[in-house]
Amino acid sequence: MKLENLSVRPLGMEAGGYEVVLHEDDARELGLYAGDRAKITSRGESVIAIVDTTKKLVRRGEIGTFAELTEELKLKPHSTVSVTSAPYPISIESIRKKMRGEDLTAEEIRAIVKDIVDGNLTPSEMAAFVTTQYIRGMSMREIADLVRSMVETGEVLEVDMGPIFDVHSIGGVPGNKYALITVPIVAAAGLVVPKTSSRAITSPAGTADVMEVLADVALSLDEIRENLIRVGAVLAWGGAVNLAPADDIIIRVERHLGLDPRCQLLASVMSKKLAVGADKILIDIPTGPGAKVESVEEARDLAHDFMNIGHELNVQVEAAVTYGGQPVGYAIGPALEAREALETLQGGGPTSLIEKATSLAGIMLESGALVARGYGREMALDILKSGKAHQKMREIIEAQGGDPNIRPEDLPVGDKKEILCAPADGYVKRIDNQRINLIGRLAGAPRDKGAGVKIILKEGRRAKKGDPLLEIYAEHEKKLDEALNFARRNPPVKIESMLIEEITHEPRIA
Amino acid sequence: MKLENLSVRPLGMEAGGYEVVLHEDDARELGLYAGDRAKITSRGESVIAIVDTTKKLVRRGEIGTFAELTEELKLKPHSTVSVTSAPYPISIESIRKKMRGEDLTAEEIRAIVKDIVDGNLTPSEMAAFVTTQYIRGMSMREIADLVRSMVETGEVLEVDMGPIFDVHSIGGVPGNKYALITVPIVAAAGLVVPKTSSRAITSPAGTADVMEVLADVALSLDEIRENLIRVGAVLAWGGAVNLAPADDIIIRVERHLGLDPRCQLLASVMSKKLAVGADKILIDIPTGPGAKVESVEEARDLAHDFMNIGHELNVQVEAAVTYGGQPVGYAIGPALEAREALETLQGGGPTSLIEKATSLAGIMLESGALVARGYGREMALDILKSGKAHQKMREIIEAQGGDPNIRPEDLPVGDKKEILCAPADGYVKRIDNQRINLIGRLAGAPRDKGAGVKIILKEGRRAKKGDPLLEIYAEHEKKLDEALNFARRNPPVKIESMLIEEITHEPRIA
Repeated sequence: MKLENLSVRPLGMEAGGYEVVLHEDDARELGLYAGDRAKITSRGESVIAIVDTTKKLVRRGEIGTFAELTEELKLKPHSTVSVTSAPYPISIESIRKKMRGEDLTAEEIRAIVKDIVDGNLTPSEMAAFVTTQYIRGMSMREIADLVRSMVETGEVLEVDMGPIFDVHSIGGVPGNKYALITVPIVAAAGLVVPKTSSRAITSPAGTADVMEVLADVALSLDEIRENLIRVGAVLAWGGAVNLAPADDIIIRVERHLGLDPRCQLLASVMSKKLAVGADKILIDIPTGPGAKVESVEEARDLAHDFMNIGHELNVQVEAAVTYGGQPVGYAIGPALEAREALETLQGGGPTSLIEKATSLAGIMLESGALVARGYGREMALDILKSGKAHQKMREIIEAQGGDPNIRPEDLPVGDKKEILCAPADGYVKRIDNQRINLIGRLAGAPRDKGAGVKIILKEGRRAKKGDPLLEIYAEHEKKLDEALNFARRNPPVKIESMLIEEITHEPRIA
Repeated sequence: MKLENLSVRPLGMEAGGYEVVLHEDDARELGLYAGDRAKITSRGESVIAIVDTTKKLVRRGEIGTFAELTEELKLKPHSTVSVTSAPYPISIESIRKKMRGEDLTAEEIRAIVKDIVDGNLTPSEMAAFVTTQYIRGMSMREIADLVRSMVETGEVLEVDMGPIFDVHSIGGVPGNKYALITVPIVAAAGLVVPKTSSRAITSPAGTADVMEVLADVALSLDEIRENLIRVGAVLAWGGAVNLAPADDIIIRVERHLGLDPRCQLLASVMSKKLAVGADKILIDIPTGPGAKVESVEEARDLAHDFMNIGHELNVQVEAAVTYGGQPVGYAIGPALEAREALETLQGGGPTSLIEKATSLAGIMLESGALVARGYGREMALDILKSGKAHQKMREIIEAQGGDPNIRPEDLPVGDKKEILCAPADGYVKRIDNQRINLIGRLAGAPRDKGAGVKIILKEGRRAKKGDPLLEIYAEHEKKLDEALNFARRNPPVKIESMLIEEITHEPRIA
């Protein structure tokens, strides 16, 4: 079916891809419904676009064109195009094959990933793919092919510097600024670490948001390469480079559906690490109530999956299960966390953060054969205490355009502050990660760099009624109020006295 | 998270639901990505909308509103609204439960269907649901609950007339105008048949398109009720009434993904029939190469599923497996088919059509206890030959505002015509349903009522080289050319001589 001489009406807005709007009756004549594909042809040039239908916006014989398509085909208002229904991309057939429970070949997986990156699959089709992955799972061989395809369809970092090390936390825990300690420690010892991180998704600060307080994180691939040669490490934002772009698209679909298929989690992490050329990868799996992984058994299981997929991909993967049942350290929010990280590099800092950062660094030093197995943590702690890690961090900051002499107290935090106090005597039984995350975000983080939460008493500490439990920082009074109101309705810190429950006689009903 | 005082910018176009456009940075501050849900509040009124994000169309602090939402909240340009991220509807959790392979309760199914009808699920979420149905299947109990929910969420026909009969073909075969014969036959015998049909989806004419040549088919529920009381039957378009509206929405998702889960097929047919109050339902399953169902085993299996779901729903279901390997009768296309149906009612018409229509009518007469088992077809044939079916059809046509005295030759067919001839001597081995469908549609059907295909020689008939095989009718020269070109490149009629294959020596390569 074909419609010719449709009059172009540019809609002056972008759609996020090639998209057109047809009158419902024209669409029906082409056998097309909203969400279907059409081939739009103008002066011999064709583009496949997703069709939206309307009864009002365009008349019969007209076609509304979104900005991307208008530009691609250089369409003028009232110029004409022809429209035919376009066939499914072949990868849809592969998705259906997987639905039926059959394994996909490397070629089929590559075609799916390519169509995702090229924008040939609609959101509904990608949703069907992710749903199928969730239900059917994928073999290690399939996941390895998926990772390779995800790497191939993006840019890759090529740097000729012997083994490349990387560390990645699967996240979910507030205050997890360990990378700002771990990376300088191992880089000070000579390891090469092109560490890319994400910005916050659900937390008040991702590693990239924290580092951005100290230096520029939007580095190009060339800048990353140069800095690696110069100082051995970067702490950059992954979103500024086009590494495994399929991952970013699939993650949006997953978030929308609230699904996180194990196979896609593995592929997501591994593709980003392979794209920077990592040979030796350490995976941090924060585990505990309120973390992404709640039990140690589950964490072990995931660790083994990561190691197996590493084996398939011919890279060395190690995993560490760390405690993620409460925030890491005391500070949550970009500037507060950057302060805490600098303090730690200067020789201070909270024990939990030092312990986590040096444990992870120790494993990396051991797998880099810089120290015997079992002695990595000690070496990492020595490097931290010696000031060499701080010195390396200065170099990293300077290479990324920041001030190497910045001190913790130079970093501005929000000047609006409220304190949440203990409602009764007792022990801090639990700090709720999700509530802490929400309070930090309501206070303005990650956008307001100075906003966040500072915990005063962590789990197991004794509190008297009226003792401060945590401080909320904000840059705007209104956001502070919102965060405080939420915190009062949803206490993030649970205090329990030794008396767990009081059992009394019910009052009699007269 | 909440953004207040966003300035409204009405976009002057509809989106097919509540939808807004936010600047990417604002969306990120709310933790929202394209496709997520937001709650839009204006002067105390709130609506849940799907978020689209942009870098250009609206600035930070602005919100683009599509027409549906602009109208619902009565928004003026530059008025302000507040936006918060909105939670998932609870039915998403139920869809995930089904993904994990667990059975859903009646309440969970009802919540999903209600959210589909109310527009609370995004296309991606509905795609995830249909994918899950396809992979996991549903139990008969679940399908019955699905049907009940689909019926409840739409209008229902209530008419106090004893048993209601209905007949439904699962379709896929061109020229399938049997209902225009079957329904008048059984109505002439006194059965009550509120027959609703769809328009063509992939074929050149659906039953509603054919009937529309003779009378009005867009009847309201009240008109259907009145006509049933007056003449005992209607032949109406299902799309004009809001029967089981979830079905129409789900079918669009299925078409988009190219999926047709068995459970949803059963639910689709049964919900439409239950919504008209049917007590006794006959399902026609056209079977043969190129039909939806290709083997008799498969057809039997489907028939049993229909009967089982009927049992669950407390309605009587019978099924007939009919030959669907080539078109029914000779005519394909709205006017051509209406002509053939009228000719058949007048005592003429092709044997295959008479046989199919009276066989189905016979089963209905038997299940209505108007005749002993085994004698239904004879009775149906008698009614057809006596002219009573034609008389009933006149009444139906008149009740639906058509001309009861219309004759076949009064119906205009396309005045542009081309003939496709046999390329060699032989037998008609196969007529390809899909190619016939495409030729009919290229010729202009169903939109051009007079367009279509007339088959001259059906399967098994002997053809001499140059004998006409079929005629293509069109209203426009250009469409005729397109149809003819396609037919020449993709011959819809396969001629085979008695000599099946010629085996010769390959010419030697020198």
